[in-house]
Amino acid sequence: MPSPVQSRASARSETGDPLLLTPGPLTTSKAVKQAMVHDWGSRDATFIALNAEVLDSLPKIIHGEGAYVTVPMQGSGTFAVEAMLTTFVPRDGAVLVLINGAYGQRAKRILSVAGRKTFVHETAEDTPPDLDAVERMLEATPSITHVFAVHCETTSGILNPIEKIAALCARRGRRLLIDAMSAFGALELDAPATPFDAVAASANKCFEGVPGLGFVVCRREALAETEGNATTLSLDLLDQWRNLDKTGQYRFTPPIHVIVAFHQALQEFWAEGGVAGRGGRYAENARILIGGMRSLGFETLLPDALQAPIIATFRTPSHPNFVFQRFYDSLKDRGYVIYPGKLTVADSFRIGCIGRLYPSHMRGALEAVRETLEEMGVALAPAPAA
Amino acid sequence: MPSPVQSRASARSETGDPLLLTPGPLTTSKAVKQAMVHDWGSRDATFIALNAEVLDSLPKIIHGEGAYVTVPMQGSGTFAVEAMLTTFVPRDGAVLVLINGAYGQRAKRILSVAGRKTFVHETAEDTPPDLDAVERMLEATPSITHVFAVHCETTSGILNPIEKIAALCARRGRRLLIDAMSAFGALELDAPATPFDAVAASANKCFEGVPGLGFVVCRREALAETEGNATTLSLDLLDQWRNLDKTGQYRFTPPIHVIVAFHQALQEFWAEGGVAGRGGRYAENARILIGGMRSLGFETLLPDALQAPIIATFRTPSHPNFVFQRFYDSLKDRGYVIYPGKLTVADSFRIGCIGRLYPSHMRGALEAVRETLEEMGVALAPAPAA
Repeated sequence: MPSPVQSRASARSETGDPLLLTPGPLTTSKAVKQAMVHDWGSRDATFIALNAEVLDSLPKIIHGEGAYVTVPMQGSGTFAVEAMLTTFVPRDGAVLVLINGAYGQRAKRILSVAGRKTFVHETAEDTPPDLDAVERMLEATPSITHVFAVHCETTSGILNPIEKIAALCARRGRRLLIDAMSAFGALELDAPATPFDAVAASANKCFEGVPGLGFVVCRREALAETEGNATTLSLDLLDQWRNLDKTGQYRFTPPIHVIVAFHQALQEFWAEGGVAGRGGRYAENARILIGGMRSLGFETLLPDALQAPIIATFRTPSHPNFVFQRFYDSLKDRGYVIYPGKLTVADSFRIGCIGRLYPSHMRGALEAVRETLEEMGVALAPAPAA
Repeated sequence: MPSPVQSRASARSETGDPLLLTPGPLTTSKAVKQAMVHDWGSRDATFIALNAEVLDSLPKIIHGEGAYVTVPMQGSGTFAVEAMLTTFVPRDGAVLVLINGAYGQRAKRILSVAGRKTFVHETAEDTPPDLDAVERMLEATPSITHVFAVHCETTSGILNPIEKIAALCARRGRRLLIDAMSAFGALELDAPATPFDAVAASANKCFEGVPGLGFVVCRREALAETEGNATTLSLDLLDQWRNLDKTGQYRFTPPIHVIVAFHQALQEFWAEGGVAGRGGRYAENARILIGGMRSLGFETLLPDALQAPIIATFRTPSHPNFVFQRFYDSLKDRGYVIYPGKLTVADSFRIGCIGRLYPSHMRGALEAVRETLEEMGVALAPAPAA
């Protein structure tokens, strides 16, 4: 006789996989993955043309055509962030790192390992930076050359006030470097109105490509000033860009299949209406998810005003029957893979709203959560909006 | 009326692509590529188990089980080489770099950018290192802590005497770091008999995976001594290994699809008989290619005794009708993508023997070369064996 678990219907993606409600790797379309079932020569004209289309399209997303260029970077998003920091910050530069999560902490560690001087403005994971305090630090410390900020901190899902940070940097004559890994393509970032030298992101977040390629969209004039800064060859954006600009080719073997998948993912991005369409779908996903989870009794870490529509953090219920591993496994059995939390301020878990997921998937996930709570014998009172 | 080009039969891979007679990216099997048509969570048990199988299998290839561990590195093979050099060479270390091609030159550049002291023993691209001179340098320069050598220099296809270099390093008490990018998996490397601290290679050469992941097989005890050496976070092999060892997970998003393709490629590698089977097929490919090209009048750069069965370099014929770009394009029209040369000693081009290519493909490529020469009006006398 089949157990209840075996007989339960299980959600699946177009390719029969569990749905990834995670901040990346995430669920991608079937067409994105099928684009990889070919081989290409990396120095052959066919691939060179396709790669150029990818790189040329990214500055358009920040309205930065002409003034900005894309420099791709093999590896994960962190490789792109490290490349940005070690290319743009001179060896004798100093960076004020705005931290309210793991990715701000990581930037500080990258800079320290690379021998760059750092200053830190740190707030809790549910708290945006105090911009008055930041301004006082910049005023008091003339040696600070750069400010580093995270657009959406994937740690909690908090939306940082990137436009205000950019205005502050402009007012105080400091260069701004942005990690927009989980925001780029879904949250508006307007280069003419939000001055920055570089922004790092990835093929594998809001573009819904596969992992293996990051990129940095760089202000062309600022990039040209970075000669001699880099302390690694592989992660030197200026060297990477000069070679691409001159030959159309990568210095070192590119992850061709990942790039071809990114090319397909970008076509789907534009077909959906670019930032407005993609961001709109994610906002709807987040609205359904958060509203539904609150009805089931889960509290969000963040108030709605600070919540980006990328990933939501929920406090672990204090009910004695709630065991996170059982919760995770039961959701996975039902076809939904969620993400354990990484926060220090609260015992919590996270559910992503990005990837090839639609409102129907979010409703399915909520039903799976409801069934799981019932099986675990966890009854919660509905949580209030925050 | 169709042109001769359009009506000509064109060779194609299992997935309808031109065949890549290049040193990587190369032609892979259909099953390797189809393995990528799924999504996985990078912190989920399914992927963690699959990744562990990949990493555990690689030390077996050098008979290094137990003593050696695999540390994967996102990015191209060069990222793995840079990770190896900057992790294993202390900040105050000094490296004797053996150079006879672009990859030796690149290692020197990596070390210089990272602030490590280098000494160089350089020979021409068709000449192995002079081991007596190397031994005299090691004797005369006690500050040299490490030797860096390339197993097969992809620049020319030359096979360097890695066993003799290892014996010399052991005799002189120096640590050996090897770039075996285009050799690992096809040419024997026996860790117990050939002492070295680390060897860097890639999923995308003789394993016939897709590009996007390098790896370094490290002597466990030597890796444990590298604390504090690294000058980058992303490329720190010790940090990468500690996290994988503790959690089974990558520190930063892995290129999941590339790794799953590598897992499939390794199954095909073992099914073919490991190094003996894979290397045997490549040797047969090289024998057919080189013999056939000589019959058509092309001279090899290298004498047979120095030729690795990975990629062959042919001198550009001096015949006035021979135009390389036309030769390249005509071969591509016929379904064979070859590689332009990078050599300083001779005007040349290269044809690879690795990837999902069999003797029938090499014979087809020879026929395409013959037809192309005829079309170009280039008649050459057969070249002698070297």
